[in-house]
Amino acid sequence: MNCPALFLGIFSVVRRLPGSWKMLTVAVCVTLLGYLQAQELQGHVSIILLGATGDLAKKYLWQGLFQLYLDEAGKGHSFSFHGAALTAPKQGQELMTKALESLSCPQDVTPSRCVELKGQFLRLSQYRQLKTAEDYQTLSKDIEAQVQQEGLREAGRIFYFSVPPFAYADIARNINSSCRPGPGAWLRVVLEKPFGHDHLSAQQLATELGSFFQEEEMYRVDHYLGKQVVAQILPFRDQNRQVLDGLWNRHHVERVEVIMKETVDAEGRASFYEEYGVIRDTLQNHLTEILTLVAMELPPNVSSSEAVLRHKLQAFQALRGLQKGSAVLGQYQTYSGQVRRELQKPDSFHSLTPTFAAVLVHVDNLRWEGVPFILMSGKALDERVGYVRVLFKNRAFCVQSERHWASERCQCLPRQIIFHIGHGELGHPAILVSRNLFRPSLPTQTWREVQDRPGLRLFGRPLSDYYAYSPVGEQDAYSILLSHIFHRRKESFITTENLLASWVFWTPLLDSLAREAPRLYPAGAESGHLLDFEFSGGQLFFSQQHPEQLVPGPGSAPRPSDFQVLRATYRESPLVSAWPEELISKLAEDIEATAVQAVRRFGKFHLALSGGSSPIALFQQLATGHFGFPWAHTHLWLADERCVPLSDPESNFQGLQAHLLQHVRVPYYNIHPMPVHLHQRLCAEEDQGAQTYAREISALVTNSSFDLVLLGMGTDGHTASLFPQSPAGLDGEQLVVLTESPLRPHQRMSLSLPLINRAKKVAVLVMGRRKREIAMLVSRVGHEPKKWPISGVLPRSGQLVWYMDFEAFLG
Amino acid sequence: MNCPALFLGIFSVVRRLPGSWKMLTVAVCVTLLGYLQAQELQGHVSIILLGATGDLAKKYLWQGLFQLYLDEAGKGHSFSFHGAALTAPKQGQELMTKALESLSCPQDVTPSRCVELKGQFLRLSQYRQLKTAEDYQTLSKDIEAQVQQEGLREAGRIFYFSVPPFAYADIARNINSSCRPGPGAWLRVVLEKPFGHDHLSAQQLATELGSFFQEEEMYRVDHYLGKQVVAQILPFRDQNRQVLDGLWNRHHVERVEVIMKETVDAEGRASFYEEYGVIRDTLQNHLTEILTLVAMELPPNVSSSEAVLRHKLQAFQALRGLQKGSAVLGQYQTYSGQVRRELQKPDSFHSLTPTFAAVLVHVDNLRWEGVPFILMSGKALDERVGYVRVLFKNRAFCVQSERHWASERCQCLPRQIIFHIGHGELGHPAILVSRNLFRPSLPTQTWREVQDRPGLRLFGRPLSDYYAYSPVGEQDAYSILLSHIFHRRKESFITTENLLASWVFWTPLLDSLAREAPRLYPAGAESGHLLDFEFSGGQLFFSQQHPEQLVPGPGSAPRPSDFQVLRATYRESPLVSAWPEELISKLAEDIEATAVQAVRRFGKFHLALSGGSSPIALFQQLATGHFGFPWAHTHLWLADERCVPLSDPESNFQGLQAHLLQHVRVPYYNIHPMPVHLHQRLCAEEDQGAQTYAREISALVTNSSFDLVLLGMGTDGHTASLFPQSPAGLDGEQLVVLTESPLRPHQRMSLSLPLINRAKKVAVLVMGRRKREIAMLVSRVGHEPKKWPISGVLPRSGQLVWYMDFEAFLG
Repeated sequence: MNCPALFLGIFSVVRRLPGSWKMLTVAVCVTLLGYLQAQELQGHVSIILLGATGDLAKKYLWQGLFQLYLDEAGKGHSFSFHGAALTAPKQGQELMTKALESLSCPQDVTPSRCVELKGQFLRLSQYRQLKTAEDYQTLSKDIEAQVQQEGLREAGRIFYFSVPPFAYADIARNINSSCRPGPGAWLRVVLEKPFGHDHLSAQQLATELGSFFQEEEMYRVDHYLGKQVVAQILPFRDQNRQVLDGLWNRHHVERVEVIMKETVDAEGRASFYEEYGVIRDTLQNHLTEILTLVAMELPPNVSSSEAVLRHKLQAFQALRGLQKGSAVLGQYQTYSGQVRRELQKPDSFHSLTPTFAAVLVHVDNLRWEGVPFILMSGKALDERVGYVRVLFKNRAFCVQSERHWASERCQCLPRQIIFHIGHGELGHPAILVSRNLFRPSLPTQTWREVQDRPGLRLFGRPLSDYYAYSPVGEQDAYSILLSHIFHRRKESFITTENLLASWVFWTPLLDSLAREAPRLYPAGAESGHLLDFEFSGGQLFFSQQHPEQLVPGPGSAPRPSDFQVLRATYRESPLVSAWPEELISKLAEDIEATAVQAVRRFGKFHLALSGGSSPIALFQQLATGHFGFPWAHTHLWLADERCVPLSDPESNFQGLQAHLLQHVRVPYYNIHPMPVHLHQRLCAEEDQGAQTYAREISALVTNSSFDLVLLGMGTDGHTASLFPQSPAGLDGEQLVVLTESPLRPHQRMSLSLPLINRAKKVAVLVMGRRKREIAMLVSRVGHEPKKWPISGVLPRSGQLVWYMDFEAFLG
Repeated sequence: MNCPALFLGIFSVVRRLPGSWKMLTVAVCVTLLGYLQAQELQGHVSIILLGATGDLAKKYLWQGLFQLYLDEAGKGHSFSFHGAALTAPKQGQELMTKALESLSCPQDVTPSRCVELKGQFLRLSQYRQLKTAEDYQTLSKDIEAQVQQEGLREAGRIFYFSVPPFAYADIARNINSSCRPGPGAWLRVVLEKPFGHDHLSAQQLATELGSFFQEEEMYRVDHYLGKQVVAQILPFRDQNRQVLDGLWNRHHVERVEVIMKETVDAEGRASFYEEYGVIRDTLQNHLTEILTLVAMELPPNVSSSEAVLRHKLQAFQALRGLQKGSAVLGQYQTYSGQVRRELQKPDSFHSLTPTFAAVLVHVDNLRWEGVPFILMSGKALDERVGYVRVLFKNRAFCVQSERHWASERCQCLPRQIIFHIGHGELGHPAILVSRNLFRPSLPTQTWREVQDRPGLRLFGRPLSDYYAYSPVGEQDAYSILLSHIFHRRKESFITTENLLASWVFWTPLLDSLAREAPRLYPAGAESGHLLDFEFSGGQLFFSQQHPEQLVPGPGSAPRPSDFQVLRATYRESPLVSAWPEELISKLAEDIEATAVQAVRRFGKFHLALSGGSSPIALFQQLATGHFGFPWAHTHLWLADERCVPLSDPESNFQGLQAHLLQHVRVPYYNIHPMPVHLHQRLCAEEDQGAQTYAREISALVTNSSFDLVLLGMGTDGHTASLFPQSPAGLDGEQLVVLTESPLRPHQRMSLSLPLINRAKKVAVLVMGRRKREIAMLVSRVGHEPKKWPISGVLPRSGQLVWYMDFEAFLG
């Protein structure tokens, strides 16, 4: 143990001594410290705070640096602190001195000792103007000189960028070219958000920074990761690993809520807010970081930065892509007015920037599949509070009537774990665990049980229903993060990979919502249930229809349900026509009815399906809405296939797999992909794939007569993979044929027209305006399969039904 | 409109007239009735109540018959009522007259009119002794004579069996041989439970009854189906079809509870109860019937008996089989004492008959997959209540703090539909629908809204949170059922198919629980949380461990966790040994670790699996407990296969499909079953299945070196499908071979020993006492694959690990 460490050891004993003894000992120790400081130090650390006179610096960063000094000065390093800005030296020094005057000491430090400590810190701190490359060179030389003078080696330099992002590049260039420490000493640069506006800009920024700094040199701050409760999520999961192991998964977790509610609005910050909005301001960073801490696989060793960062990145990769329907947006009513005032916009200006957003996130891995993660943040709401709530499924039945339920032992009452980041009715950070769940383990030195406050209800239950712990001493996030930077705990910061993964996740949603009008809400409690939302099937929507939406205005588009399904004939066969949604529903219903009937009569149902985009909506409908479908007795065949491996995204089978087979239980051996890939080659004549498929059909399908064949129609009149002017499969004996498509991939396999026409029923699905012309043309032509293969579809003794949406049929 | 109908029409008008007018009109009408009764009747109906002086008859049946008479007498039939029993005529007639004296009229009938109506009914009712075949013949002749005398045709006869089951056969034989009505008239026999004691006895009883009666002639009563709320379940689902269509499925329903709690105990009925117990007494019949009404697919026409019965039967077929772990049992503490007293048992006697049971039921179809249906019934509990509760999932988030939630519009409060059969704190039958769900539609003539009762809380919410409806007039279940019998509404009764399906469902559970000791509970509210239970993974268990179970007694078997996994060597390779559960966990962990590593290094993981029973536990473990398993990048191969179609239950692939593939997401094209079934024949040499599989392996698996091969070991030392004394596959160049097993099916396909030994890792799983001898033998032999193929397993450059449970390893 070196002397400063010894000193701190003494100091920690001193804390526990009575007052007068403490004073005496402190005095002795201070003398001791002065004596020891010159000796046996491990090196010198320079900390350069860029933007030293800005708001963030005044509010948090100087205080954080002072705390770092108090914590670390005795442990083997010497320090110097350089406040830097563009301001001229004299003025800058004045501003900085003013900022430093308001530094405060920890509660257990006496006022006089505090004056002393602040004095030490001030002596080590000085202001510098940093504008030009020369300024940086000078700084570098000054540091070197100081280190030499102290007779020390240089340990490293920390540059904290508390400046607007447009200034990053210049500063970074100057540091890299003129202010790097010499060999053997480390460089750390600390960056504050925003880190870009979307994936592209974030990538550009990252590339630019990457040209100046190594990945390991960069520390991107998300100050939420420094909040005591957030920083405790992984340690909590680790310390309670044994009990959580069985609970922390889709079998037990009902939902996860990551919530940040603010009462303040964006007044005074309109120029920033109008450019960013709530998703970029809080969801893309704070809430997403918290989400990954909850969702990630827990590494065996949570103190390994590398393992934590790797698992976190894997969590990002498991996030299901967001769609427009994944979010709801709101804007408080006075926002647009504030923007008009602050940005001098005309009265006609209305902002589309959301100040409230809720997003439904799914983590597509086995642990979390199906568990909704709700991210919500907003300004001008009824309360200020931040929390993560993990609600567990209620899988208990309590036999006695509710009057007899005892909250500690009753498994029917809500079971939840809440990481209460701060504020709210509780008013401070805390971790709450329902008493009917388990008694959590937390580090006893730094966390203590919260006293009950009768009458206080949190998340539906009285506080006394929880094991509740809060930090012994509240610590500011920046103090914690500065300490983590100093100790190279990179897991508390956003790596480039992590940042880009987050933008990859958020950018498509931001793009799709760019022109979406947010729902207006009054500020505070006035909003009532206006912003409440629900989720189902991956979509999120407001619980209450908007008053304006209830009565469609003159300009609003008719909705599908405003129309009836139209029945008519087309080419002398029945035609079902409707808006797309209704058409797909009707087709799905008809297929189910056919399937049920076939299974009742024959014990099985042979269905041949086409590829393409229209059937995908059908597959989704069948997968999610048809509970009576006899999948266990259904055989699935392909009407045609592209000559690519089955796992190729271009494969028709792949669409079937992703949108249907993943969701229903068709036995493996009832699935009959076309054998386009045999002997490691694609559709080679000599592999006889077509013949093999034909034999399989003959063997399993009575009379080779499918119960239902679903076809489409191309703009050139092709159907299945039977193309105009190409004779294969249009007549003859062959049941399955190889054909050539005019489009890539050219090689195809297809059921032949004669085989299709053996089916008991053929449904042709035609959707979209692009099909209008061919639909009109085909309505007039006779039996000319060589020109329009679709015109050859006419089951010999079966039924043909056309399903066309209004756009294809009516134009 | 015939005259009696006209009369009833008048009568219904009369109900609404003021008192004096009513009296006058009634008098006129009675005269009119007497006049009309002799004319235009459609036929004569005889109702024979067997057991006419028994408890059920006295309590419900005579009253029900009187009600039937009141409801139907004016509508075109004449009636005669025959009370029958073994008692001699005079004594019997006296007993019966006494029973009939207590008949009561509906509330809206005046006392004098009531006297008159009762008089009419009594004149039509007479007692008969029915003992011998002659008695039945006499009865038949008397009926025929009466019909002739009245100048009517006979419409039909109803025999109500209110007698113990042992008497059924005799009575049935007599009716069939001596008391069937003539041609053109119908016969209906009404049977009361118990309908057997298990599947076998129920089948015997059904076969016996089937030799006397047609299925359409039999009406098996479950009086719960006559309870007003239960009878309303299907009509409710039908009338609210539009809104329920989207809600009544696994996407929206959180759970369904079918509950019947009683405060009474079995005192005085010990001889019956001791034989049947709570499951046979209430779950197998009442609760199961209700379950099917909730779970069945709703037929398009709910008034079609045939369709309702068919759909109900389909619901039975979708029930997942019950296992011992599906239930928890209890017995109130004084039960055994009651049995000892009532059945004169010795003091040492302790009954195992449950008086409380809760069972977790799953309906394995797409509509209900994963939704827990909880059936619970018990005696001597804290309250008397019966209900079905459908609790919907909470998929809402309410943005405001809870203080601002408004119950009607707040989607975050519980949403539930309760069919409240009766009693409980509410005190009467009712249907409750949470107001934040929807306003239900109910027949307005027969159901009315319930008045709020401030302070009354039901299912966690005040009564005012529900739309609550109750029947306008409470009707007894037997009255309703007698009317349904009369109107041939067979859907309210238990068909033979339905009965047997129910016993098929319940018998295995009853058998497996026969020697299970129920948990003892004090009667009433004393039980506290002792009987509370939870469910997870298809199992149900008491929430509180039993005090006795906390400290294992001297005779109790050690539990797996009492032991460490043992590490040693076997045949000079690492051996992992443990109790079965721990062994499987360890193996699953090791496989996952291998998989993760392989995917990290090579992007995919090639796993070859064996068939048999030991791997099934492994598959289940992998399917449910391993969230980080990289299934999307895993290729599954078979180590061996039986020459049967893949869909055959004997197929190794089938085990893999049922226990693993159904539960995880392995892409279709990563699954590689052995091609044992080509060209519609099994393992024909000329189809070259083995060569095809070998080529597939060579093409996809680098160096044909699997990442992991899982093998077993047979009691004859075989492994995969490589058998002693059969040279195929033990050496040589072939990668995959056809072999002969000494056991059926003889023909097999198997990876060869040389191919297995190319693997990077081979795990051999050996479990169970049966393997003890071969495990000992193989531990001592050298490399003798021709005698013991397993002894030839030794990967050339890979690792071999043995996983043996303690029974196989230590005996």
